[in-house]
Amino acid sequence: MEHGFFKVVSSAAFRELLAGFPKLGTETVALGAALGRVLAADVVAGEDLPPASRSSMDGYAVRAADLFGATESNPAYLERVGEIAIDRPPDFALNPGECASITTGGFLPEGADSVIMVEHSQDLGAGTVELRKAVAPHDNVMLRGEDVAAGQVALPAGKRLRPPEIGLLAALGQARLRVGARPRVAILSTGDELVPVTATPRPGQIRDVNSATLAAIVVEAGAEPQLLGLVPDELDTLAAALRQAREASDVILLSGGSSVGVRDLTIAALATFPDARVLAHGIQVSPGKPTILAALGEVPVLGLPGQVTSAQVVMRVFGAPFLRHLAGQAGAFGEEGPGISAELARNLASKQGREDWVRVRLESRPGALPLAHPVLGKSGLLRTLLSADGLVAVPSEREGLYAGSLVVVRPL
Amino acid sequence: MEHGFFKVVSSAAFRELLAGFPKLGTETVALGAALGRVLAADVVAGEDLPPASRSSMDGYAVRAADLFGATESNPAYLERVGEIAIDRPPDFALNPGECASITTGGFLPEGADSVIMVEHSQDLGAGTVELRKAVAPHDNVMLRGEDVAAGQVALPAGKRLRPPEIGLLAALGQARLRVGARPRVAILSTGDELVPVTATPRPGQIRDVNSATLAAIVVEAGAEPQLLGLVPDELDTLAAALRQAREASDVILLSGGSSVGVRDLTIAALATFPDARVLAHGIQVSPGKPTILAALGEVPVLGLPGQVTSAQVVMRVFGAPFLRHLAGQAGAFGEEGPGISAELARNLASKQGREDWVRVRLESRPGALPLAHPVLGKSGLLRTLLSADGLVAVPSEREGLYAGSLVVVRPL
Repeated sequence: MEHGFFKVVSSAAFRELLAGFPKLGTETVALGAALGRVLAADVVAGEDLPPASRSSMDGYAVRAADLFGATESNPAYLERVGEIAIDRPPDFALNPGECASITTGGFLPEGADSVIMVEHSQDLGAGTVELRKAVAPHDNVMLRGEDVAAGQVALPAGKRLRPPEIGLLAALGQARLRVGARPRVAILSTGDELVPVTATPRPGQIRDVNSATLAAIVVEAGAEPQLLGLVPDELDTLAAALRQAREASDVILLSGGSSVGVRDLTIAALATFPDARVLAHGIQVSPGKPTILAALGEVPVLGLPGQVTSAQVVMRVFGAPFLRHLAGQAGAFGEEGPGISAELARNLASKQGREDWVRVRLESRPGALPLAHPVLGKSGLLRTLLSADGLVAVPSEREGLYAGSLVVVRPL
Repeated sequence: MEHGFFKVVSSAAFRELLAGFPKLGTETVALGAALGRVLAADVVAGEDLPPASRSSMDGYAVRAADLFGATESNPAYLERVGEIAIDRPPDFALNPGECASITTGGFLPEGADSVIMVEHSQDLGAGTVELRKAVAPHDNVMLRGEDVAAGQVALPAGKRLRPPEIGLLAALGQARLRVGARPRVAILSTGDELVPVTATPRPGQIRDVNSATLAAIVVEAGAEPQLLGLVPDELDTLAAALRQAREASDVILLSGGSSVGVRDLTIAALATFPDARVLAHGIQVSPGKPTILAALGEVPVLGLPGQVTSAQVVMRVFGAPFLRHLAGQAGAFGEEGPGISAELARNLASKQGREDWVRVRLESRPGALPLAHPVLGKSGLLRTLLSADGLVAVPSEREGLYAGSLVVVRPL
């Protein structure tokens, strides 16, 4: 095993190590199952959208030049030459002095360049329509190709699909899509004091919390948890569990290595594999310092702290972006949107050289930024995260943040 | 059918009408499937958490009084009387002058009230430990019941479960939970110009976008879409589709009623049911004004505009909170967290008496609030939502917002 020295790395270096793992393979899914998935290839529009110019209002298709200068007191009069059906393109063209009634979504006849809303018209009968307002060319028209033109990249590879993207793909007839595979994530908890959720702990024992919370975060990150259960703090058993996990999983999460003894055991178990590499043995963050990153061949192993809060924070800050990266999402390690800006409610001390992730509770204030109240407490307790809305980073080059500082909150 | 008059209501009144529908029934799910679900009953802790006081550090369990005044230059010396196993409670008590080695998570022996970190100690051998720092009672200890005490409400009914709540439920041994049922949401698209996503449109036709986007928003809201497909703009067929939908669904979404003719058809189809009530026939919002809210007996029917952007905005602003309300979420119509504060990049005009929901793109700026750039464009186009990060409300009592205003962005 490659493991030259005790490598405590910065959070930036840790992200770079994670980003060094290649993305996984791809698979084809139906559009109805594509929400939250990541496009594996550019989607090129096979046609213009809209396929032809369409009205965005109920009214009359016109030639804008015919209504030049039209007002309430000086209306224009046009000849109504037809009615445009909603499901067929018009079979006539519009000549100067002519108009055609049209409903929202209707296709414009040749010669028409704009639509005037029905509110500004009066049908005088005998084929004559009074129009009391001027329009500019393209008014109330969705132009052919305005959403996307044939041959253009409609959506790029690496894009995570939200409902609006699903809509564009539907419009383009993309009923099946090539997307990044969902990472299969093995979850192992170590700790002789742990019992399954369904068990009644004897005195001295506690129930396994990390398997359930890590699985939930994995699901939220769009990946597939594989709960492999509890592993005793014993070298051969742990090595066997790792061997099993690497066969059927794309990523291995191992929680429970927060005390020095268990961390040593994790390293020892990894050392039983000739192709194991320890890439980081600690991150300069709090909570989460005792995190281990290794690779068993190609399979990344993230050794998370056993403390429940530490494990969740590390998964939020590093693990979830890593899973999105493996699924092929572009910029997965960048910020997930701009976060929630807030005003820090009180001074926060921090150690220079260490990035702190502080749990905060947000208090909304009308007309002002929300206040971010730090929620302090031991990272082995559950309640700090329960009462928190998000996390605020105190950068490693700072010795803290003053009350009133503008901070960016990453939601939990 | 009850339908006295053309009821255009304010957005607040529309929310009240939605909130008037009772929440659905409940079901039992395994903890592993409970992420995002809503608790149907209070969860009361059956035991203290932690079950006994535990160490949050590797070090020595001590009586704080024994280390009073201890410093580097004036250390205290205690007798090491034992080592605390991680998976068993200590079978000894700590007397004055004694300490016991303990690892993170270990249970404190009787008599101990605090833990001193191993960094501040030196094992001198022959059972003597030198301790070079004072501690206060409870230092480095997670106290019995500090997360939750037996008999307390650990989580209230109506709470949506995030990973931290899943963790608390795991710790309490709640392997199965009573949660609100996921609303079954029938989705019908009307419009003679529409063809399924898999079809090649003839000239004049376009593919059905709303079924796919509405289904995606329904999934994101934690509900279950039932795609009932396209319905021609024809009274009997639409009435039959509504009859089928009310049998098997908790909510009916009908999209396509944006043009006046189709809205009239929707009302006419509802009127064929003796127990139909039209509750609202328009909302004072833009986009989304032509939204209809009705009830077929107990089943709510939301008639969404056919314009793709309007339909999505109405679903985001009203539909998704409504589905969470039906699932039992407390405060579903309140704000979903504090939203993203941003600075408006330019003036926004709006009509008084109408709540505008403007699509915005967010631009992050280091050390400052993100800039919110309005994305304007016709609501029949797909591209405004594609390039938007969220929605900003211009309240109905305002005639617009000035550039530089603080706005709250609801993410898409």
